[in-house]
Amino acid sequence: MQTKLPVGILGATGIVGQRFVQMLERHPWFEITWLAASDRSEGRPYAEAARWRMKTAIPARIAEMHVSPAKPDGAPKIIFAALDSGIAAELEPRFAEAGCAVISNSSALRMQADVPLVIPEVNGGHIKLLECQTWRRKSGGFVVTNPNCSAIGLVLALAPLQQRFGLKTVMAVTMQAVSGAGYPGVASLDILGNVIPYIAKEEEKMEEETLKLLGRLNGSRVEPAQQLRLPSAPEQPIVYLRAPDRPQPRFDADCGAGMTTSVGRLRPCGVLDWKFTVLSHNTIRGAAGAALLNAELLKAQGYLD
Amino acid sequence: MQTKLPVGILGATGIVGQRFVQMLERHPWFEITWLAASDRSEGRPYAEAARWRMKTAIPARIAEMHVSPAKPDGAPKIIFAALDSGIAAELEPRFAEAGCAVISNSSALRMQADVPLVIPEVNGGHIKLLECQTWRRKSGGFVVTNPNCSAIGLVLALAPLQQRFGLKTVMAVTMQAVSGAGYPGVASLDILGNVIPYIAKEEEKMEEETLKLLGRLNGSRVEPAQQLRLPSAPEQPIVYLRAPDRPQPRFDADCGAGMTTSVGRLRPCGVLDWKFTVLSHNTIRGAAGAALLNAELLKAQGYLD
Amino acid sequence: MQTKLPVGILGATGIVGQRFVQMLERHPWFEITWLAASDRSEGRPYAEAARWRMKTAIPARIAEMHVSPAKPDGAPKIIFAALDSGIAAELEPRFAEAGCAVISNSSALRMQADVPLVIPEVNGGHIKLLECQTWRRKSGGFVVTNPNCSAIGLVLALAPLQQRFGLKTVMAVTMQAVSGAGYPGVASLDILGNVIPYIAKEEEKMEEETLKLLGRLNGSRVEPAQQLRLPSAPEQPIVYLRAPDRPQPRFDADCGAGMTTSVGRLRPCGVLDWKFTVLSHNTIRGAAGAALLNAELLKAQGYLD
Amino acid sequence: MQTKLPVGILGATGIVGQRFVQMLERHPWFEITWLAASDRSEGRPYAEAARWRMKTAIPARIAEMHVSPAKPDGAPKIIFAALDSGIAAELEPRFAEAGCAVISNSSALRMQADVPLVIPEVNGGHIKLLECQTWRRKSGGFVVTNPNCSAIGLVLALAPLQQRFGLKTVMAVTMQAVSGAGYPGVASLDILGNVIPYIAKEEEKMEEETLKLLGRLNGSRVEPAQQLRLPSAPEQPIVYLRAPDRPQPRFDADCGAGMTTSVGRLRPCGVLDWKFTVLSHNTIRGAAGAALLNAELLKAQGYLD
Repeated sequence: MQTKLPVGILGATGIVGQRFVQMLERHPWFEITWLAASDRSEGRPYAEAARWRMKTAIPARIAEMHVSPAKPDGAPKIIFAALDSGIAAELEPRFAEAGCAVISNSSALRMQADVPLVIPEVNGGHIKLLECQTWRRKSGGFVVTNPNCSAIGLVLALAPLQQRFGLKTVMAVTMQAVSGAGYPGVASLDILGNVIPYIAKEEEKMEEETLKLLGRLNGSRVEPAQQLRLPSAPEQPIVYLRAPDRPQPRFDADCGAGMTTSVGRLRPCGVLDWKFTVLSHNTIRGAAGAALLNAELLKAQGYLD
Repeated sequence: MQTKLPVGILGATGIVGQRFVQMLERHPWFEITWLAASDRSEGRPYAEAARWRMKTAIPARIAEMHVSPAKPDGAPKIIFAALDSGIAAELEPRFAEAGCAVISNSSALRMQADVPLVIPEVNGGHIKLLECQTWRRKSGGFVVTNPNCSAIGLVLALAPLQQRFGLKTVMAVTMQAVSGAGYPGVASLDILGNVIPYIAKEEEKMEEETLKLLGRLNGSRVEPAQQLRLPSAPEQPIVYLRAPDRPQPRFDADCGAGMTTSVGRLRPCGVLDWKFTVLSHNTIRGAAGAALLNAELLKAQGYLD
Repeated sequence: MQTKLPVGILGATGIVGQRFVQMLERHPWFEITWLAASDRSEGRPYAEAARWRMKTAIPARIAEMHVSPAKPDGAPKIIFAALDSGIAAELEPRFAEAGCAVISNSSALRMQADVPLVIPEVNGGHIKLLECQTWRRKSGGFVVTNPNCSAIGLVLALAPLQQRFGLKTVMAVTMQAVSGAGYPGVASLDILGNVIPYIAKEEEKMEEETLKLLGRLNGSRVEPAQQLRLPSAPEQPIVYLRAPDRPQPRFDADCGAGMTTSVGRLRPCGVLDWKFTVLSHNTIRGAAGAALLNAELLKAQGYLD
Repeated sequence: MQTKLPVGILGATGIVGQRFVQMLERHPWFEITWLAASDRSEGRPYAEAARWRMKTAIPARIAEMHVSPAKPDGAPKIIFAALDSGIAAELEPRFAEAGCAVISNSSALRMQADVPLVIPEVNGGHIKLLECQTWRRKSGGFVVTNPNCSAIGLVLALAPLQQRFGLKTVMAVTMQAVSGAGYPGVASLDILGNVIPYIAKEEEKMEEETLKLLGRLNGSRVEPAQQLRLPSAPEQPIVYLRAPDRPQPRFDADCGAGMTTSVGRLRPCGVLDWKFTVLSHNTIRGAAGAALLNAELLKAQGYLD
């Protein structure tokens, strides 16, 4: 039996970092050997440094690991990055320069021309962008990113429509769970009995990331994650629900272990052609699960050897 | 000092009926003298028949009134109707035939060609439709309606745009509070931690009522409610909020005692011309307050003499 | 391999009935062969009759089963009963008289002198009461019950204290989730941003059931469920959590697949001796899971042969 | 007409500070002339420094006031203090030494022997402790405090029982709203669908403050706030609600403009003598309103001249 590849988590104590820890616990290909976070956490046992917010128990082996400084020295070659975008802009290039494969959930480098922004089922072929990424040519390291948590569900629903019918104009309105804001995130006083109609930069991300994701890279071909039998790929990336009042977060968010996007309420639109409702799990398919699936795609295509 | 006009409430024990009771408590023009509800409530004191859900205390005089049968005999000439649409379709015509002025919040007759569907600030002139309403010509009675709770906020925001620039195409997405479903309405198990993407017939109402409200009646003129100094007319029917994260229900729903619609986040749209966010109180401006304002308009124009 | 025992569910369309369906889906000993509900559901496919509220999908085989009338004719010998207490008082005796083993979650017969009220880990020996139960002597049928959802967590926490130190006086205050009220249960308008300080008959049940559960039956011995290796028995019936702010429903309610009761915050009390906090899953350990564990205990002790 | 007394708010930008601003807006006796907060806010207009969370609009005059440094120079003689207890321990004595009347909502000095801890309706006579307060004798300044938000409702309910029957033993369990934790306070991720069974130092405060409040100062007499016609004193400090399911926060928290404590569900107790439920508004009667009533008592008794 093959040994697992050692991986590290940058930003391991935050909510997305914790989700990485949770999702990697019994992963068949990867094994966590390194956890890094801000100076405040450095040197402390992970269980003490992280305010664990997952519903499953903190894995015993991880709980005792000590948090390393957020520097490439001593880090493994494969790094899952769960950093705020300001810090990501500074640290992710540093790890890539040092030869690491950085699989990032941050928005910092998503729109950089030579950085692949990838949903394996949609534009897995964009991974080829790595061939011309400067870091990769210099150090062998690189950065691959996944989209914003709202863009990912939208694009999973749009991709088959684009492929089959073509797409010209899309209007989208999102309703987002507070969990997308990380921890401590939104104050309870701000959100109980309330709706907040604004998330800074969210609309811009939705617009530009969607275009990049649905764009065509010369010569790229889609080789769906499902055919590659990637461990975190759901059986179905999309399901259509027939009941008129579905999808609903309560019943459908966890579909396919949180990796399947649910679509429903398809009906003609009086302005554009069609209207429908999309539901996607924001912290699994929209964050840690997205990055993990990207890592699996990279492994399957030989980029992590 | 002029004596107040006696009014009755049809469907007085439901949530909208209770809101009528609350809003009429100290009304300068109207006074509740009759409360009717379903057979189950008939003959019982109101405080016992109604499961009072308002935050202010039940008015003492009203609490002791006995609930009358839902029949025109003995009813006053002015009736606020807060009935489910199935029952409204049957009862409202009966009261109009008997000579009552029925000011209805139900959807049953809204789209009937000779029934005015009115927001005083937007299309108060539509009241003229009464001139050709069959009931009015026969018995003197009539039916006037107000729109669906979502359509009303939308139309209040659209009307000045239509007047100034013209309107061709509108797309709207609503997020609605559970209180709009009445009582008991939505089960807590269905909505806690959840979003339900469907309300039966809601989209149809939004589409057709909006068109009727923004339509032009030959010869009608708008005489804004604010100029008429109607008691329930807010100082401003619409306010624009500059902060990028407003309007928010928590802070803005009660603006103008729940009668003012808040607009915010106006910005260019990549598909149509402009995008913005509208907030309107669903059970005040969107139900009892809307009907009450219609009654005041009718009074001001001599239809209740 | 042994064939599974056929079981039926009485009240199969309600929330507890659905939980039985969910928990029995892959049960090693029992197999659902019969589903009954009120007249309204009779003859319809289960998927259509039940408004499925569980988070896992409705099992395909069950979805297509037709709902039988709530009568003993044609029912299997083992019946899980999830009925409202008024109906249970009428139907449960009828099934017991007809020779069925009725494993009931209802409060109707719990306090009847010859009906065992059982938590396997606490007073499994009370099952012996069946020896003198009239139904059992006449028809072979019988009724066994589990406690109220709040009493069960309390008693699981008290039992070891009673055994080791003795118990004289207990004061308990409960905070209960809306899910305990079934479906549609509590209206969202009644509970959002609110606390309701009263559930009819709840305090009485807590008081009398606790005494019966902690009572000693002459000659009975506790043979813990864990030793009997009952399939639904959690590894630990109770866990103690050291963190000062635990147990919390969000993190601890699902402990032991919802069958483990969490205790925390043990500290001296200025009035009685000790204070602590108990958390127990209301619809699993407090309802369907409790009944299922009772059924497993009955099977292990030969009462279902 | 008498001119109003100038008052200042220390910690004016926090939630309790904002509540002071809101409650003082149209106060007949006091007028805000000075607002102070931490260094970060110093010199900025209040509307900009405070993240306004009240439901009523920020008063225009206050919005433009500049935030002063938290130092006694230039401060008025009457100071409402809404500081975290760590900072209060340092700043409140400094203002008292400088001759200010500090009316504090903080827990820092509540239990100090010569500092009155006062609920006007319960132990207004404790104000006499000021006679022996060191600060008062030296500079004329002093500190008066109000209790913890949970203690205050409890004591308002217990005081008449103590007076009439005597009190020996009390057990209390509290359920507290997140708003009590200030802003940002509790993260939404921590509390949605959850209950947190612990607030640091809360139980200690409840125990010791209750004893001090219900204690007798030699020679002191109660002169109820209602007799003194203090502007913020509710008509009734306590109301008893007869319905078996009341009080409920949704309907009863705002009783008496948030200053009246509601009691319900009085019934015999099997362990002690009686059980009942108390509801009190945590940020009005339990914080800003409590301090304001204390200030009015001080004024009425000549301590602010």
